[in-house]
Amino acid sequence: MPNSIFKPGILCLITLFLALSSKGNENTLEIASELAQQAVESSLALKIATDLTTDIGPRLYGSESEKRAVEWARARFEEYGFDNIWSEPFPVDRGWERGLETASITHPAPQNLVITALGGSVPTPEGGIEAEVVVFRTIQALLDQPEGSLDGKIAVVTQAMEIGGYGRFSGPIRQNGPSEAAKRGAIAYLMRSAGTDNDRMAHTGVTSYQPGVRRIPAAALSVPDAQQIDRLANRHKSIRIKLLLTPKELGTVTSHNLIAEITGSQKPDEVILLGAHIDSWDLGTGAIDDGAGVGVVMAASKLIRDLPNPPKRTIRVVLFGAEEIGIYGGNYYVEKHRDELSKHIIAVEADAGQGPVHTFNIGIGNPLDPSLSIIRKALESLGVKAGRAKSRGGPDIAPMSNVGVPVVGLDMFTGDYFDLHHTANDTIDKIVPERINQSAAVYVTFAYLASELGGYYRAEN
Amino acid sequence: MPNSIFKPGILCLITLFLALSSKGNENTLEIASELAQQAVESSLALKIATDLTTDIGPRLYGSESEKRAVEWARARFEEYGFDNIWSEPFPVDRGWERGLETASITHPAPQNLVITALGGSVPTPEGGIEAEVVVFRTIQALLDQPEGSLDGKIAVVTQAMEIGGYGRFSGPIRQNGPSEAAKRGAIAYLMRSAGTDNDRMAHTGVTSYQPGVRRIPAAALSVPDAQQIDRLANRHKSIRIKLLLTPKELGTVTSHNLIAEITGSQKPDEVILLGAHIDSWDLGTGAIDDGAGVGVVMAASKLIRDLPNPPKRTIRVVLFGAEEIGIYGGNYYVEKHRDELSKHIIAVEADAGQGPVHTFNIGIGNPLDPSLSIIRKALESLGVKAGRAKSRGGPDIAPMSNVGVPVVGLDMFTGDYFDLHHTANDTIDKIVPERINQSAAVYVTFAYLASELGGYYRAEN
Repeated sequence: MPNSIFKPGILCLITLFLALSSKGNENTLEIASELAQQAVESSLALKIATDLTTDIGPRLYGSESEKRAVEWARARFEEYGFDNIWSEPFPVDRGWERGLETASITHPAPQNLVITALGGSVPTPEGGIEAEVVVFRTIQALLDQPEGSLDGKIAVVTQAMEIGGYGRFSGPIRQNGPSEAAKRGAIAYLMRSAGTDNDRMAHTGVTSYQPGVRRIPAAALSVPDAQQIDRLANRHKSIRIKLLLTPKELGTVTSHNLIAEITGSQKPDEVILLGAHIDSWDLGTGAIDDGAGVGVVMAASKLIRDLPNPPKRTIRVVLFGAEEIGIYGGNYYVEKHRDELSKHIIAVEADAGQGPVHTFNIGIGNPLDPSLSIIRKALESLGVKAGRAKSRGGPDIAPMSNVGVPVVGLDMFTGDYFDLHHTANDTIDKIVPERINQSAAVYVTFAYLASELGGYYRAEN
Repeated sequence: MPNSIFKPGILCLITLFLALSSKGNENTLEIASELAQQAVESSLALKIATDLTTDIGPRLYGSESEKRAVEWARARFEEYGFDNIWSEPFPVDRGWERGLETASITHPAPQNLVITALGGSVPTPEGGIEAEVVVFRTIQALLDQPEGSLDGKIAVVTQAMEIGGYGRFSGPIRQNGPSEAAKRGAIAYLMRSAGTDNDRMAHTGVTSYQPGVRRIPAAALSVPDAQQIDRLANRHKSIRIKLLLTPKELGTVTSHNLIAEITGSQKPDEVILLGAHIDSWDLGTGAIDDGAGVGVVMAASKLIRDLPNPPKRTIRVVLFGAEEIGIYGGNYYVEKHRDELSKHIIAVEADAGQGPVHTFNIGIGNPLDPSLSIIRKALESLGVKAGRAKSRGGPDIAPMSNVGVPVVGLDMFTGDYFDLHHTANDTIDKIVPERINQSAAVYVTFAYLASELGGYYRAEN
């Protein structure tokens, strides 16, 4: 974690706000500064994330738990006194639930393996399968094999995810790997987890099957287990693994986006959108992914709700459903709200853990809008640098960004995010108050200023 | 980990040896110094521990894997050219193997729990049990309950183990807790793991049932799961848990101590004993517990074997079996070797992880033996302080210490030992070369000097 953000103390930094304020916006900046301070002092984001992960727990898309989480959030926004609160159901055609999952090396050194089924994996045949493995140190080595070369074998890919390389890794190895192995004859697919830890924790995450290709059971090994297989493969000609996965495919299930609004006092039809996703994988309680994000945007909006005067524009919080299985909620939102997207002034999402937020990147049509420089300075005083990367905002708001909604990225420190991501270890005890509090302070600052200031963020304006 | 041990670099420290040498022992000290340097440079202890944890894996007492480990060690000592190598079988009346183990909160917030059966636990009834829980923040709070107060309930003890408090914790909570809960009517027992981490890893370890008390299924919760239950208990009146454990009791099984000797050139009947235990719990691969110890004592003895001249006294390595279920190997050794214990000059065991060794404590009859001050100085140069605590040496040599065999404690840093201890996370990737190498250097130094110097360690001499 970058030390610079905490070393001087966040409260001291907040006081820099006023010194940086532009003429004419003193009052707005003062309110934003007070909101940031409240976000830190109240630790509200952490309290919300604790409630969600304790009283609901894991929230797999389409499950009863995800529904309970949506109702929990609805009740919470009602208690906060939001003006409009509603949920929008949508179908997810890949309903799924985890079953038993066990694996062991049966030869040459019998021992259990720590694995977890990839999200959406088909089950093994009843009783499991036991077969010779072929170990590939890289996915490319598997792709280089001819058809039929893995007939009857379990393909194991032990390639390590590089730090910062989640996207590059999860696409070819987790999403496409099983079908590529199946095309070559494999009867099951194991991969080294997409993770940066060395705990015996397997990282789940969605896989997909290519149309027309035999669907084979697919699971992730913990990093130490993948390393153990590598060592054994260096020493022994033959390794056999037994694998049992009993997930169930549930057909089409229903998920929900939960939407809550504070109606703007001056431009009620103009929306500042704060997003996070309410669903989580089932192994942990979804604390960093994405209970923290839910806590951050709910806390930020609650603090704005509590102001004596409502914001000028409408603050809309969207808690997206079914993110993990493929951004179903984010895509549905665009479909459902297409007609009003032109009135979405700006959108931001919190879905990269607990923070702290280190960089403010923009992905909008009019980067020279003068209000942006005011926001930039206000965020600087919270330890957030101005970045030059073009942001797509976050997974659930990428679809609206793709059709022209201006988005920004309040980019978080993720140096330890992929240690916990999609594992049983993603629990609330991993959240550090100072980190999530800074994130909440940044989000509330951004949301409030975006509502009150300029707002000519679109190229066409 | 105490910085002082590594900051100046172990190799520099080794060179201090000679400066500290007592007159008349220059050559012996020089050889010891070279042995220490070889231990560090060869990384032999780590290589041995890697081989054991890879080619054998977990080594539960009485299992085929423990037998394979004993044969592996026998072959290894043969390869090293040891003079006498033999194994000594003994019965263990508590044969056991783990089965399925699942648990979940069924009310009020359905979610899976990470648990593991305590070693020796009975299974749940087929299909598992589901019941209301009673949460106790301390074991004392459970003990304060009257008979019958837990009828039909699952008792959950969420007391946290203090750092350094393993013995105080595991006795009353892990060993005796299940019977105390059963006496009060409980139908199952869950405890917060005896561990210092906050991973979702449950720590197993032996439990025992009091004679005449109903035996109930007993398991450990990971620390975050115990915290989750605490939070839920603060918020909700009723919590229900479903528990399934399918371990099998196997009756009497056979374990083995493996003994390998380098015969002393001048006093072959006098034994310097180096111990470690070959068995491990079944969840991890037994790297820190006690693959590291096996690596350290095997490496130390191999380096002495490779000297041009054999040591004066006999170096005897004992790899004890069935330590984890209750020091069966250590107790059997005393029974079997009672007649020759008077010729055991001194014994030391490595069973506290990977090191580094920070303190040299003695538990012997004649602490003023002049050779001890030479050893103390030699160890000082490896970063080992002289301690004042009376040592019992280690779990497997405590029984011989109890009947008068002089022991020393080469006490290791254990600040992170109980993060991994008895969990699936106890794997070879957790071993840091510099740490285990220092331990091997300390053990070889001690073993060699103890063989060559004085040796009037007994009170009666």
